[in-house]
Amino acid sequence: MDLKEELKKRADFFNSQLEKFMQGGLPEKLYDATRHLPLAGGKRLRPVLSMLSCEAVNGDIIKVIPLSIACELTHNFTLVHDDIMDKSKMRRGMPSVHMKYGEPTAILAGDLLFTKSFESMHKTPVDSNTFKNVEYGLIDCVREISEGQQLDMDFEERKIVSEDEYLEMIRKKTAVFFQYASEAGAILGGGTHEQSNALNQYGLNLGLGFQIWDDYLDISSDLQTLGKDIGNDIRNGKKTLIACHCLNNATGEDKKILDEIFGNLQATDEQVKKVHEIFKKTGSIDYAKNKAEEFCSKAKKSLEILPDTDAKKILTNLVEYATFKREN
Amino acid sequence: MDLKEELKKRADFFNSQLEKFMQGGLPEKLYDATRHLPLAGGKRLRPVLSMLSCEAVNGDIIKVIPLSIACELTHNFTLVHDDIMDKSKMRRGMPSVHMKYGEPTAILAGDLLFTKSFESMHKTPVDSNTFKNVEYGLIDCVREISEGQQLDMDFEERKIVSEDEYLEMIRKKTAVFFQYASEAGAILGGGTHEQSNALNQYGLNLGLGFQIWDDYLDISSDLQTLGKDIGNDIRNGKKTLIACHCLNNATGEDKKILDEIFGNLQATDEQVKKVHEIFKKTGSIDYAKNKAEEFCSKAKKSLEILPDTDAKKILTNLVEYATFKREN
Repeated sequence: MDLKEELKKRADFFNSQLEKFMQGGLPEKLYDATRHLPLAGGKRLRPVLSMLSCEAVNGDIIKVIPLSIACELTHNFTLVHDDIMDKSKMRRGMPSVHMKYGEPTAILAGDLLFTKSFESMHKTPVDSNTFKNVEYGLIDCVREISEGQQLDMDFEERKIVSEDEYLEMIRKKTAVFFQYASEAGAILGGGTHEQSNALNQYGLNLGLGFQIWDDYLDISSDLQTLGKDIGNDIRNGKKTLIACHCLNNATGEDKKILDEIFGNLQATDEQVKKVHEIFKKTGSIDYAKNKAEEFCSKAKKSLEILPDTDAKKILTNLVEYATFKREN
Repeated sequence: MDLKEELKKRADFFNSQLEKFMQGGLPEKLYDATRHLPLAGGKRLRPVLSMLSCEAVNGDIIKVIPLSIACELTHNFTLVHDDIMDKSKMRRGMPSVHMKYGEPTAILAGDLLFTKSFESMHKTPVDSNTFKNVEYGLIDCVREISEGQQLDMDFEERKIVSEDEYLEMIRKKTAVFFQYASEAGAILGGGTHEQSNALNQYGLNLGLGFQIWDDYLDISSDLQTLGKDIGNDIRNGKKTLIACHCLNNATGEDKKILDEIFGNLQATDEQVKKVHEIFKKTGSIDYAKNKAEEFCSKAKKSLEILPDTDAKKILTNLVEYATFKREN
């Protein structure tokens, strides 16, 4: 099986459905701003997850399309607002929505994307009870994502963050959405309670592995090549798992250097390099890599109870594709 | 009947329910920011409308409480985001959310208020089909409010706006929400199709009258007393019904003066006064007043088919209370 081909097939189908859903609307400026990010592509990981989960329980994929659109639009709504909060100028190789359309229209476009997520959900061809149950999951998910985003901002202002706190933050900020997309896809596909739970755990662990791997990728690459990003994360005191582990485990001189440099906006390149070396020496980089692998194994293991289908194979291989073998 | 007493009774009951619903939540900063505006009071016009509509069809008010909370929270979500867009520093006599908690947390708090609106809706004690129908109304409403807000911003950059365009803008920005709160209250109260439609029209016309009266209040008061606000609206070229009427009907020398001064940020007090005089001379201020009265009459007339109840009386008297006799 060609994994990339299988994923592309589903992403292409998803894209055609999304484009149909996002047509038209006035005032033009608002709707252009609303289309800017979702129609610019991306990995479509969340919608594809919901489609594969539906397939993995032998469900009809048509039932899950409104949900998959809702997941992608909700994800994009959070990106549009996050970019304003972080003052990010670029996204997916293009100017971010607020850079292109101004902040007021970008705030509105985010709100409208969120609204349209619910509009899409309402098209789900299932009975009203199932609809209500699955929709409530999305609401709960967005609540947790908002809480996770605030935690992430709060952590930047703190000297130290425990591993449990870090894991809770990325669970809310990233993993709950993978968890929701996978579980809801299975529910709408008519999966049993056991199957939906298995895919819930698959999504949760994939999401945790995905986010830790993200942090790992940023910092494990050669300092010479990645330079700027690593430097920024260290200067801003970004609480990744690597940083949390190191701050909690470094001792003596290393601890003193960390105290002085980590989170210091004025740190020199030489100082940043020193912190990176302490990360390595303390074993924090390996620690994060192992943790990511642990979550990925758990994700794959939770699939075991599912019937043997192509979708199950794809979901299994997707774990590595989304983490260790990720292409940016 | 003491109208104010009747309204206060319902607002007090609503406030106690809202406070219960808004308790707790972590991270603290986010939840404090989320509570800041909704728990600061306000007229509670939308929730009270939904409660009265429910009563007017002899419905059980308990059924409508989750909806009334959803309406107030959605309204507050739009205010929090609008204040960021407009850079407004104050709201309800307090610093606006972004002034107190910073813009990133204010954007998130708005998003969370919107999320919590749906969370509240899900508590509505009705069958899933009715729930789905009423919830879709809220989604549609927020879509129109977003469109209306963008139209309002677009209009500021235009030289001229027709009366129809203006009415469509305030319908979306303000009236649809009154319309929704009234109609949905009647549906959840078990009203007939005819009754729900009547309350739909009541809300729509009340909302239009309310917004036009708002514009009228701002500009009809003595220029000496109100000074600053009128001046700002004229200097910013704010497209109220008065301005739209005048820009579309003034001729000769008056038109030339309008062209020069209306929307001119550098206009002097003397020039602002001249525009105000042209508004009066062209009959635009009276025109707006008559239009507001027209919508208010329509609102009251649409109540006629309802059974005679206290709620009907209150809704009738509420029209004037919310417009001509408004206390700020």
